[in-house]
Amino acid sequence: MATDISPLAPKTYAELPAIKGVRIETVAAGIKYRDRTDLMLMVFDRPASVAGVFTTSKCPSAPVEQCRANLGGGKARALVVNSGNANAFTGKKGRVSTVLTAQAAAAAVGCGEGEVFLASTGVIGEPLEADKFAPVFDRMAGSASKDKWLDAARAIMTTDTYPKLATRTARIDGVAVTLNGIAKGSGMIAPDMATMLSFIVTDADIEPAALQLMLKRHVGSTFNAVTVDSDTSTSDTLMVFATGGSEARPISAAGDPRAREFSKALADLMQDLAIQVVRDGEGASKLVEITVTGAASARAAGRVARSIANSPLVKTAIAGEDANWGRIVMAVGKAGEKAERDRLAIWFGDVRVAADGERDPDYDEARAAEVMKRDEIAIRVDLGVGRGKARVYTCDLTKAYIEINGDYRS
Amino acid sequence: MATDISPLAPKTYAELPAIKGVRIETVAAGIKYRDRTDLMLMVFDRPASVAGVFTTSKCPSAPVEQCRANLGGGKARALVVNSGNANAFTGKKGRVSTVLTAQAAAAAVGCGEGEVFLASTGVIGEPLEADKFAPVFDRMAGSASKDKWLDAARAIMTTDTYPKLATRTARIDGVAVTLNGIAKGSGMIAPDMATMLSFIVTDADIEPAALQLMLKRHVGSTFNAVTVDSDTSTSDTLMVFATGGSEARPISAAGDPRAREFSKALADLMQDLAIQVVRDGEGASKLVEITVTGAASARAAGRVARSIANSPLVKTAIAGEDANWGRIVMAVGKAGEKAERDRLAIWFGDVRVAADGERDPDYDEARAAEVMKRDEIAIRVDLGVGRGKARVYTCDLTKAYIEINGDYRS
Repeated sequence: MATDISPLAPKTYAELPAIKGVRIETVAAGIKYRDRTDLMLMVFDRPASVAGVFTTSKCPSAPVEQCRANLGGGKARALVVNSGNANAFTGKKGRVSTVLTAQAAAAAVGCGEGEVFLASTGVIGEPLEADKFAPVFDRMAGSASKDKWLDAARAIMTTDTYPKLATRTARIDGVAVTLNGIAKGSGMIAPDMATMLSFIVTDADIEPAALQLMLKRHVGSTFNAVTVDSDTSTSDTLMVFATGGSEARPISAAGDPRAREFSKALADLMQDLAIQVVRDGEGASKLVEITVTGAASARAAGRVARSIANSPLVKTAIAGEDANWGRIVMAVGKAGEKAERDRLAIWFGDVRVAADGERDPDYDEARAAEVMKRDEIAIRVDLGVGRGKARVYTCDLTKAYIEINGDYRS
Repeated sequence: MATDISPLAPKTYAELPAIKGVRIETVAAGIKYRDRTDLMLMVFDRPASVAGVFTTSKCPSAPVEQCRANLGGGKARALVVNSGNANAFTGKKGRVSTVLTAQAAAAAVGCGEGEVFLASTGVIGEPLEADKFAPVFDRMAGSASKDKWLDAARAIMTTDTYPKLATRTARIDGVAVTLNGIAKGSGMIAPDMATMLSFIVTDADIEPAALQLMLKRHVGSTFNAVTVDSDTSTSDTLMVFATGGSEARPISAAGDPRAREFSKALADLMQDLAIQVVRDGEGASKLVEITVTGAASARAAGRVARSIANSPLVKTAIAGEDANWGRIVMAVGKAGEKAERDRLAIWFGDVRVAADGERDPDYDEARAAEVMKRDEIAIRVDLGVGRGKARVYTCDLTKAYIEINGDYRS
């Protein structure tokens, strides 16, 4: 498995401040990896409001089902995440494992099992031995501290080449609140409600239903707008926890104007983390932003953008630094959405390569080649049939993706 | 561009017999390739019945539009196919090019422009200079002969590594008729009504409407059941011509019991050619047959099979000879069709790897590894929710695919 750090990795990792009401611990529980932390416990000292969105896979992992079942309660006291094993497609053993894990975590933290949320990432189909976790939770709950965000981001990594962290602040009635987030994901990334795994914590005081609405509002343009390889995971999980540890007064409705700045900061944080996931796309050498305008609807624009972003021919052309707009035409055509060939226009960066259904008469190949050499490439397609717009982020498809996914036996 | 012949290529090419009523000529017209034939003219001495299915792309090539417009007439006197340039997304120039080509071919053959059918394959977006063809058609029509099927299959190749030919015979009222077919395609293959290009000729006498019905009936389980890279072409064209040159009496209805053997032979020929296209999939090292049973409907089974066949994670695992059934579970889950995780069963070859929503307790990794080493791999998935069934053919995803599509500028 390739272990070099992605060339698109950030130069430095965000330093996340402490958030009142949450403590973190990580350990190496020996689930699959040697000498690497693979278990993370987040403890909320008082019940935190919780919201979450999960994979739309028809074969979701056992932890995803556990989270869905507990989400109705709206309160969290503990989050347990392990890497190395997804506890997906593990049948009854998988369910037993989530029950045992939640029981042990609840006992260690001193809460109900319904206040424990679980997530697992790694190999599909291997039974997850929960008895490995149970003995360590007591110790972890005791030593958990407020400054272990980087450790948390590392503990949930699988084929990720770097930890993903981001932080934002916002004011509610003039009082500052903080939002911290971590994420993991590199392959099997085409989130359809959420990414592989991402967890956001804020010290704002926000009711669960309001938090859920804000989360849903922003997920479409952030995590659901990224794709590495079109393969939607069995384990996608995105959760937000609000500890209420700040001095800011409570928010009870998503539409409350007092929550506007918070909601914007949440969207911004989610976008930051989602882009970090794409930048760590397996084998990625280029970050690609695809904007589709002039579609019949926003939904149609999204489908066309995703068709371009998931096309192996488009992705390999980008890897080869080839401004191959014919493949963009192909991907627009196969998307099945309304498009009129003779109104289509395509740009690579600021270079218009095609217009009115044929090559731009002023097309300058040297300028397009210059654009293709960049680390970050913007592709814009105008369909010319309506006002629908969408943006999707992806990466290129290189030999390293094949190496990572084809040259080893998982 | 890789030029090695696919390891999955047939050991010998089918020898196609002459078919009464059709003559073929090929030349090197210098469209894009050096020292290679790139133009093929098929002449039908008397009007042949014609049927065709074409790409569902919203950005079809100019020749696809030309064929669609002429299909209503039901009669063909000439087929002109060039490789090296797809005449797709070429705007008004593209339409002018098809008109000029059809006029020149009609003049050479002595027929109406509505009896000429065109197909082009190659680069998208480059204007196709029809004036290169016009001067050569006269000569080609004169020298066309009955024995040039292999030349025809070679002339229409682009990234193909071998020519694709097949032949069948059938009896109508006890009289033998022949069906010959050629195809091309290697990348941008996820046909959605037809493959890149395939042409079938028979000496049976079949009315156009009946021929069209038979073609449509068989295309779903043959050409539309193969995928190399999920990228549907702008140029997919599959046509059948019936010259009536045999002694067999005419067929005027697809449902005529006298046509049963012919229809079966047609389906068989189409399947043969479609599999040859997958065997030449860009970078392919393994042919993969994916069968989905127990789905809610045949349509649902097809979507699940296609989700598996198009998953880069499944395809790279097969390239790595990894019996990674977790990725099959992922692909089933993301397809969006009804599936119950705990009823799912998966086989590689005859080795059941998963059943009842978890790893098969009798799973033998060594036996599965043995299966994965083969050139041809059968994957079966039973969803356990209904009686719908579908079969799809694909190939693996290797570094050679990336080399072919990313390491050159087209």
